[in-house]
Amino acid sequence: MHIALDVMGSDRGAEELVSGALQAVHESSIKITLVGDGEAISSALAGRQPNAALSVFPTTQVVDMGDSPIDAIRKKKDSSMVRAFELLKDHKVDAVVSAGNSGAVMASAIKFLGRLQHISRPAIASVFPTLKGPVVMADVGANVDCRPRHLYQFGVMASAFAKIMFGISAPRVGLLSIGEEGGKGNALIKKTHELLSASNLNYIGNVEGSDIFHGDVDVIVCDGFVGNVCLKLSEGLSEAVLTMLRDEISKTFKAKMGYFLAKDAFGAFRKRVDYAEYGGAPLLGLNGAAIICHGRSSAKAIKNALLVADELTANRVNDHILAALALDEAGLDCLDGEEGQ
Amino acid sequence: MHIALDVMGSDRGAEELVSGALQAVHESSIKITLVGDGEAISSALAGRQPNAALSVFPTTQVVDMGDSPIDAIRKKKDSSMVRAFELLKDHKVDAVVSAGNSGAVMASAIKFLGRLQHISRPAIASVFPTLKGPVVMADVGANVDCRPRHLYQFGVMASAFAKIMFGISAPRVGLLSIGEEGGKGNALIKKTHELLSASNLNYIGNVEGSDIFHGDVDVIVCDGFVGNVCLKLSEGLSEAVLTMLRDEISKTFKAKMGYFLAKDAFGAFRKRVDYAEYGGAPLLGLNGAAIICHGRSSAKAIKNALLVADELTANRVNDHILAALALDEAGLDCLDGEEGQ
Repeated sequence: MHIALDVMGSDRGAEELVSGALQAVHESSIKITLVGDGEAISSALAGRQPNAALSVFPTTQVVDMGDSPIDAIRKKKDSSMVRAFELLKDHKVDAVVSAGNSGAVMASAIKFLGRLQHISRPAIASVFPTLKGPVVMADVGANVDCRPRHLYQFGVMASAFAKIMFGISAPRVGLLSIGEEGGKGNALIKKTHELLSASNLNYIGNVEGSDIFHGDVDVIVCDGFVGNVCLKLSEGLSEAVLTMLRDEISKTFKAKMGYFLAKDAFGAFRKRVDYAEYGGAPLLGLNGAAIICHGRSSAKAIKNALLVADELTANRVNDHILAALALDEAGLDCLDGEEGQ
Repeated sequence: MHIALDVMGSDRGAEELVSGALQAVHESSIKITLVGDGEAISSALAGRQPNAALSVFPTTQVVDMGDSPIDAIRKKKDSSMVRAFELLKDHKVDAVVSAGNSGAVMASAIKFLGRLQHISRPAIASVFPTLKGPVVMADVGANVDCRPRHLYQFGVMASAFAKIMFGISAPRVGLLSIGEEGGKGNALIKKTHELLSASNLNYIGNVEGSDIFHGDVDVIVCDGFVGNVCLKLSEGLSEAVLTMLRDEISKTFKAKMGYFLAKDAFGAFRKRVDYAEYGGAPLLGLNGAAIICHGRSSAKAIKNALLVADELTANRVNDHILAALALDEAGLDCLDGEEGQ
């Protein structure tokens, strides 16, 4: 397995990403090509033990967070991001991992890899920690206006991902809505409920916002607008809860002492909800594997993203997706004939 | 001020609601009519000091959580909920507070009170605690499929609410989207952004899910599907965070000791995020004031809801809404002529 890591464009700089790559090659047998500014990579590697599993592909441009996705592809042909996807397109590597501008990663992936056969819209999947196991939500931002067929396909893709990553044979799929009964929700959700009910997915029905963190469902299907709002709300609220709690604790000496004693428990809690544990959000539904990492990803998050890319590719996630789609094809076409794209 | 309190159909029973009513009459000069099963009310009042501000309107039926809103109105004409709204329609009271089936409260309110002039869709507003002051979100569940004009009106109504409840002269209004730039979002959001930009509201642009709990915005506008998902996700996540934290704390004796010392801080935190502090969700855009309370509202939550109903009515929230709409009428009609309803 050979992965291209775009080391430019993140908030923390190339050194953090190179450090994640070094951890990944130590812990696994993957090969990594570091794509980015040659000098930045050399300086990040300075003093480290040479490792045969690491190679460097120097580039001269960087896609910034402010670049429009189209400009990034058109005007920054020698950017680390574009070059990484070219390597994948030319079969020089098996997957791409990037912590750069996520809109540009998405656009580059679609342009250079193309959509997987039968998939109308590639989606971004994200893993959330819950009271029990992790849950995969898709889409969390690639598609803001969706049709029922798209949501069904998000369910197929996220199920394939959950199967591989969490070893669940038939992931429980829920449709995010505002009531548990099938008739509840907006027009998009009602129609999607019919499609999912008729599919071969292990569909358990509607789930509500309050169910996301209970852990009684493995895959949550929603459109990219709702999913992105949920993702960012969750990050913001978790931080706000901890800030308010810290604020209250800092008000008295007794509470501060208490916090000191309970500090390890707080640390364990943080580890439990740490997004870095899940290593980035895979882009599903493309001819090739790509993982989008948070702009402020730590070395550990990058390492985990590289391992996820390895897992998905080694376990042929796309074959699982195609098999699931084939199983449903005839039944759903007659239910939903007009939804070609 | 005279308020009808529907004491039936909540999770905690009539006694909790009667207790909230007693607290409200002690703390304010409002009069309350307790609407519901006569025996249940008598038994809840037994042993309490008689209070001239409290009266009883006995009814024989109860709208259950499982009843469809239409059936509730058609078949349960002597239910506490229907009777409470009839009292408001007949000007016997000035507002209704209910902790019963929220779909049925919404339907009864629309049927008996009717929509406020110029308002296409009444909305449910909900108050969230943040790192700074509270924020009002609308709609959180009344309207699942919306047009831009509806979202603009939610902004007008929630602004009027924020003005009265938090004493802010020009509440900052944000549009919930998935990127801060005005061009980001789905089709509904892009068009709504234009409308809000052209309005006389203090519109500050798009806000993201992560901004909800920062407290840098006073009003957040969204459709009722997205708002309801956010509301329930927030409740579920806050509970999950505390459960996970408690779980980690219970693992060692040292951490348990620490928790014991910091217990007051946890208590203060809980009070800070307690929904009961904000007393229910007002239904805005009707000819009359109605407050929907959480099914598991405590006496304190009911008391606060009664005080909110009093504030909204005394400060003529509807006059504020109509004045704001009149200010925008000409400008927005030419921008958005096709959006009649």
